[in-house]
Amino acid sequence: MIKSKKRNIKIKLEYDGTEFAGWQVQPEMRTVQGSVETSLNKLTGEKIRVIGAGRTDAGVHAKGQVAHFSTSTRLTENTLLRGINALLPKDVVVLSAEEVTDTFHARFSAVKKTYCYSVWTAKISSPLHRRITFHYPHVLSITEMQKAAAVLVGSHDFASFASNRGKPEASTVREIMRFDIIKADSLLRLIIEADGFLYKMVRRLAGTIIEVGRGKISMEELKDILMKANRKYGGPNLPPHGLCLEKVVY
Amino acid sequence: MIKSKKRNIKIKLEYDGTEFAGWQVQPEMRTVQGSVETSLNKLTGEKIRVIGAGRTDAGVHAKGQVAHFSTSTRLTENTLLRGINALLPKDVVVLSAEEVTDTFHARFSAVKKTYCYSVWTAKISSPLHRRITFHYPHVLSITEMQKAAAVLVGSHDFASFASNRGKPEASTVREIMRFDIIKADSLLRLIIEADGFLYKMVRRLAGTIIEVGRGKISMEELKDILMKANRKYGGPNLPPHGLCLEKVVY
Repeated sequence: MIKSKKRNIKIKLEYDGTEFAGWQVQPEMRTVQGSVETSLNKLTGEKIRVIGAGRTDAGVHAKGQVAHFSTSTRLTENTLLRGINALLPKDVVVLSAEEVTDTFHARFSAVKKTYCYSVWTAKISSPLHRRITFHYPHVLSITEMQKAAAVLVGSHDFASFASNRGKPEASTVREIMRFDIIKADSLLRLIIEADGFLYKMVRRLAGTIIEVGRGKISMEELKDILMKANRKYGGPNLPPHGLCLEKVVY
Repeated sequence: MIKSKKRNIKIKLEYDGTEFAGWQVQPEMRTVQGSVETSLNKLTGEKIRVIGAGRTDAGVHAKGQVAHFSTSTRLTENTLLRGINALLPKDVVVLSAEEVTDTFHARFSAVKKTYCYSVWTAKISSPLHRRITFHYPHVLSITEMQKAAAVLVGSHDFASFASNRGKPEASTVREIMRFDIIKADSLLRLIIEADGFLYKMVRRLAGTIIEVGRGKISMEELKDILMKANRKYGGPNLPPHGLCLEKVVY
């Protein structure tokens, strides 16, 4: 008897994180991973575990989350794609599905990831942007924030911007390849590309950078915070709804 | 005894129409007008009627709705602004408040209005854009749509794009000053500026234009539809959630 070989499928996902308790399956909670697994189970009849590139927190959005799963189904990539989407709730979709080699792992094979943190800087909040931006109605110096971002680009020990997740991180050194500060009218976007991120690192980097923009943290103080490599020195952790996982590169 | 003179206040509003049964007060329904009136009543103790520039339908959004109301309150413009916003739900805000002359009327004094109809044209729907765009996953010719928009610009009898609201319109002639078709990645925007709009006119114009973009209506047929000036000939009425009242000019 020939045992049917399992296929490894890579999917790209977009979701509105507002009504999800994050990516990761949790008992009794509505999660993105749980929704995708339930849909796959209905579609294939198999019990499938879906592994995501990034375990986004409750409220965090994604335009380009990547995940993989192992399946025995013979459905084509396109049928899988359309089948899952027909079964998923409206706040999550699979943008693409492709069969990949067995060695592909959504988390471990990732070379770099891009996150965007969006801030609404107008004095008055925006109902049309409230779900995907953090309202911070203060005057910010874009030039100072860009200087601060330049300080953070490169390989550094980012321990000052980590949050304790219960387990000690093996290494807190990461490389930021790109850190752009872009403002268009009231919308400020902090775009960070790195080879990896510590838990809550983007939200703490964003919180620190906007304090630089407000003049509360000087460039010297920022360098000092980075150098101290201790999570008690970094700036505040901004709320999750401003954060979006934009892209994962392999 | 000197009778205290009432003040006329002009406000500009933004709202996410998703969870409103439209602008206009209706018994037992959650409406924008009703929410603003309730907040003003709490703030001033007066029973205030708020008149909007456009009575947007259920699900329609606004970035620049304008309204006016008459009040005896002595609160400053800024205190009124902050007071109303503190009392309003999160999906509606007052962006500005200013005292105007008695002759100002939000609807009758309006010289022109701008609406934007947004379409998500990607094959797969977008959870992050689903509340503010209509998903129409088809290949569209932007050039043809721009030609069609040019046909509609100017003073015309737009009866073919009206919907019966129960009462006959006095005149169905309107002037479109601007009709832009802009596409950026998957987001297609139809921006229409006119001296006034018939009921559901923007949504029917948008429905007709995208049928031109798909090749279902030719330029000759479009001219014929316009010329016939009869609402049975115009294209379909697109759903409300793609529509946004952008601006009112006085």
